[in-house]
Amino acid sequence: MPRREITSFSNPTIKALRSLRDKKHRQRERRFLAEGLRLLTDARESGRVPEVLVMASKRDRHPLIDALERAVEAAGGDVIETTPDILSKITGKDNPQAVAGAFAEWDTSLGTIERETAPIWLVAQALRDPGNLGTMLRTGDAVGAGGLILIDDCADPFGVEAVRASMGAIFTQKLVRARWEDFLPWLRGGSGQLVAASLREAVPYRGAPYEAPCFVMVGNESQGLPAEYEAACDLRVTMPMRGRADSLNAAVAAAVLAYEVLASLEG
Amino acid sequence: MPRREITSFSNPTIKALRSLRDKKHRQRERRFLAEGLRLLTDARESGRVPEVLVMASKRDRHPLIDALERAVEAAGGDVIETTPDILSKITGKDNPQAVAGAFAEWDTSLGTIERETAPIWLVAQALRDPGNLGTMLRTGDAVGAGGLILIDDCADPFGVEAVRASMGAIFTQKLVRARWEDFLPWLRGGSGQLVAASLREAVPYRGAPYEAPCFVMVGNESQGLPAEYEAACDLRVTMPMRGRADSLNAAVAAAVLAYEVLASLEG
Repeated sequence: MPRREITSFSNPTIKALRSLRDKKHRQRERRFLAEGLRLLTDARESGRVPEVLVMASKRDRHPLIDALERAVEAAGGDVIETTPDILSKITGKDNPQAVAGAFAEWDTSLGTIERETAPIWLVAQALRDPGNLGTMLRTGDAVGAGGLILIDDCADPFGVEAVRASMGAIFTQKLVRARWEDFLPWLRGGSGQLVAASLREAVPYRGAPYEAPCFVMVGNESQGLPAEYEAACDLRVTMPMRGRADSLNAAVAAAVLAYEVLASLEG
Repeated sequence: MPRREITSFSNPTIKALRSLRDKKHRQRERRFLAEGLRLLTDARESGRVPEVLVMASKRDRHPLIDALERAVEAAGGDVIETTPDILSKITGKDNPQAVAGAFAEWDTSLGTIERETAPIWLVAQALRDPGNLGTMLRTGDAVGAGGLILIDDCADPFGVEAVRASMGAIFTQKLVRARWEDFLPWLRGGSGQLVAASLREAVPYRGAPYEAPCFVMVGNESQGLPAEYEAACDLRVTMPMRGRADSLNAAVAAAVLAYEVLASLEG
């Protein structure tokens, strides 16, 4: 489909894009919106091309925008030029960036990952805060993890808040959604050390015997990990808690632990 | 003032409490709301007593609620019993906890802290996300920091989101708000190593020569620290970035660095 210009708010394509900001509609459609040249370029370079690319009609030329446009056209997608007003309506921002894209969700089954391709994998169980989820993806990218495995009922990884917090890592990290009863047999079907950030009987996180591929698991924000999940882990580690509180923010705990694992594996 | 029961939504005290959920009103009043027995007990044990304590009329007796009530009465505060419906209206939650309190903000000037009382202090510059701010308070508690120093224009530390993310550390950590041009002379007027989490010329964060009291500073979520602020630091450190992104979430960076400082100072 060739590039086309749309200047009407009531155009069905524009309405469909806008509706992706509604959570329920987004989840029903299994599509999501991402914005910004850098993000969309990260996506393209990770093999994720939007079904619909929307650009401001008046914009500076940029080789990365040209590359995006070519990629979308090559994949049979839709390239739309529109007004700043309509772009604002789509993204919900007063100052939208010059490009946005609507992506189809992709396969997030366990079979999509190869554990040996990365030394670290992050695992989150019943993580409810989309900001924490996106932050874990971002941290995973930073520590060279392969991806994030979401166990049981977690926040929506393709929702606006998680995508934003991931700072592009939604495209560059592998993402898996699985039930515990499927994850554990899959894990035990190959190599892999499962490490729990734990408040229970545990060894100090610093200097613990980590092994690659290391699966670093944190639990729900208020409940932590179920006792039986922890019991199934190869290692339970704990961070010092010097104050009155007994736990860290889940994304913080994952990051402190993942950086320790990285240092240990590389040391 | 003795304990009293209020059952009317239009009661002026109830209306005043509800209005604290409005950001502008809250900031004008310089008061904020916190909810839950554990949080209010942390507050009380840290010397922070609410001006107004609101409790569900029908509740289980609890020695910690009694202790709160005595503390509020001793401080000349107001103890109110009310209905679950009104408590919901005040807290904005469908299932409010049995107690909530309205606190007056306290003095957050540099003069309120004694740097020698803690090995670590967290510092945030132009931090805009209240969740990050609250998470830094929570992390500060965990690493045994003395408190959080907010430089330049940061998110509202007494806003609902920051208070919630702090998980009680708003009461147990010292909190300071200062301009850079006031903070730096204050810092240099005593002992203290200023360490920047930096993306520029920096040494690896792991094994860097940290010294107590260590002031661990992170910058704005999108801009990082201004170059001249970094130049004024005693040490610039950087975390490994193995992926495509060049930075961590600000609260995550602070936590990874603070835990490294803790291990270094205690090692």
